[in-house]
Amino acid sequence: MRERDLIARLLAPLATGATARGLDDDAAVFTPPLGRDLVLTHDVLAAGIHYLPGDPASGIAWKLLAVSLSDLAAMGARPAGVLLGLGLSAAEDDAWLTAFTAGLARGLNRWGVALWGGDTVAGLAAAVLGLTAVGTVEPGAALSRGGARPGDGVWVSGTIGDAGLGLAIARGEAGADKYLLGRFRRPEPRLALGQALVGVASAALDVSDGLLIDAERLAAASGVAVTIELAQVPVSDAAAARIRRDDAGLLALATAGDDYELLFTAPAGADVPAGTTRVGTVAAGAGLVVIGVAGMAIAPGRLGFEHRSA
Amino acid sequence: MRERDLIARLLAPLATGATARGLDDDAAVFTPPLGRDLVLTHDVLAAGIHYLPGDPASGIAWKLLAVSLSDLAAMGARPAGVLLGLGLSAAEDDAWLTAFTAGLARGLNRWGVALWGGDTVAGLAAAVLGLTAVGTVEPGAALSRGGARPGDGVWVSGTIGDAGLGLAIARGEAGADKYLLGRFRRPEPRLALGQALVGVASAALDVSDGLLIDAERLAAASGVAVTIELAQVPVSDAAAARIRRDDAGLLALATAGDDYELLFTAPAGADVPAGTTRVGTVAAGAGLVVIGVAGMAIAPGRLGFEHRSA
Repeated sequence: MRERDLIARLLAPLATGATARGLDDDAAVFTPPLGRDLVLTHDVLAAGIHYLPGDPASGIAWKLLAVSLSDLAAMGARPAGVLLGLGLSAAEDDAWLTAFTAGLARGLNRWGVALWGGDTVAGLAAAVLGLTAVGTVEPGAALSRGGARPGDGVWVSGTIGDAGLGLAIARGEAGADKYLLGRFRRPEPRLALGQALVGVASAALDVSDGLLIDAERLAAASGVAVTIELAQVPVSDAAAARIRRDDAGLLALATAGDDYELLFTAPAGADVPAGTTRVGTVAAGAGLVVIGVAGMAIAPGRLGFEHRSA
Repeated sequence: MRERDLIARLLAPLATGATARGLDDDAAVFTPPLGRDLVLTHDVLAAGIHYLPGDPASGIAWKLLAVSLSDLAAMGARPAGVLLGLGLSAAEDDAWLTAFTAGLARGLNRWGVALWGGDTVAGLAAAVLGLTAVGTVEPGAALSRGGARPGDGVWVSGTIGDAGLGLAIARGEAGADKYLLGRFRRPEPRLALGQALVGVASAALDVSDGLLIDAERLAAASGVAVTIELAQVPVSDAAAARIRRDDAGLLALATAGDDYELLFTAPAGADVPAGTTRVGTVAAGAGLVVIGVAGMAIAPGRLGFEHRSA
């Protein structure tokens, strides 16, 4: 499919808002709501690195969108629009592009987000997909990683480690489970929770690389020590059927990536939203302390995924 | 270099504004100026497609920035900030990354733009670089491709075709010329001109794929016919020394890409800024008419570059 046809047939029908200008202009024009800050994030997903070549294209589009919207959720923002950078190879044929844009349409619809514009390029060795997401938040109210204070509780939404088990299933390394595979393929950005945390949480981020490594990042950004109690880590029924609730099993869940749950801190007595679980405590100091199921500090071999750049 | 070091050592020093939050958070937070629309664009440059593998890294960063800022210029916007998507391969070693960020710093500084955030991924087969640029414009004042009206004049800034000759030099297909090579390697987005055209131009776009093909796009978006007179196309002294001012020579210039000049239309009698040349006329109808140096319509074999997507 030529770029012109891709834009006219598949992308322009998704770009219905006034901001996109029918994808006819050099750029999108957005009138921000009066008295709101804008929150902006950009994420890149690459074929063979962030997703498997055989993954369904509709799920890749969903994930591309979900990953960036999860960043907005972590800041307490309400999503408004996205710009899409499609770097394509010969592997992305018309069927792939049709499925990809269908998945994108479902996600945009589900999360109330508009397609504003973007760019496409063909002829790459493997697909590289970029997405910029823009959201809005009340002035000065955006959450940050840097606000945790000694005495705060550490909380996490949903359940942890499901997507890591789903990845193993997608790779054929574990038996099928629809729920766990769905948690890997179709993560759900915690947008409503993030907005509810404005004025409640002292710090927040999304769990993308593993609960423990992301907790360590929150500790570093806030200049505090964070203690995580493995026994408190929320585990889904599906995950509980596959792992033992000992240190090794819980560490496997707490160091797996792609959860896209929110990890946040809140002062004692704060009115923390439902669907969240207290997993630890903030103290003066620095770094991450992990408490095993026996109640003693343990030294995990690794904390999660750390991307390397070159 | 690890992603963490790339961000801490090379990128964080460029992200000095409050919006970037030291690259420490999940997203950037921008307080838009009161009573301004935002203009947003995203562009992708791929190694081996948009630039040559041996091109200096500092120039690649410059071009990545210039291409997106040129889109903002075409809308009449004042640039504010950018988000960067760095997809890297093994070829982008520490020396490349250092030169790239130095070039980025020069461009940000030159055009008064802040680095707000982004994402990096390593392990690609070849580099794919994405950039989102955000600018501001007075409400409702953004220029568009769609406003040309019969009777308007068609104008272009600067000189046309220099970058195409510079590309031939970079490829070793033509003798050296510092000016022409610079026009290819370090395009200059016409930001001041774009802002000056607000309230003056009836339509505008930037010339990225060739004067003729971009004129045809303006005609299509406006629902009018555009006539371009080849004899009026502005030619630099350096280009004039290399091509004849006959139809073939002028067509070579008017179908070359990467000029990043502004093509715009303005009503008769409009106070058009200096440094621009009238090259044609808008009429009722549709499509592009090219008038050769003999004063007769000619049929060019091609109009410029059309990117293909799959």
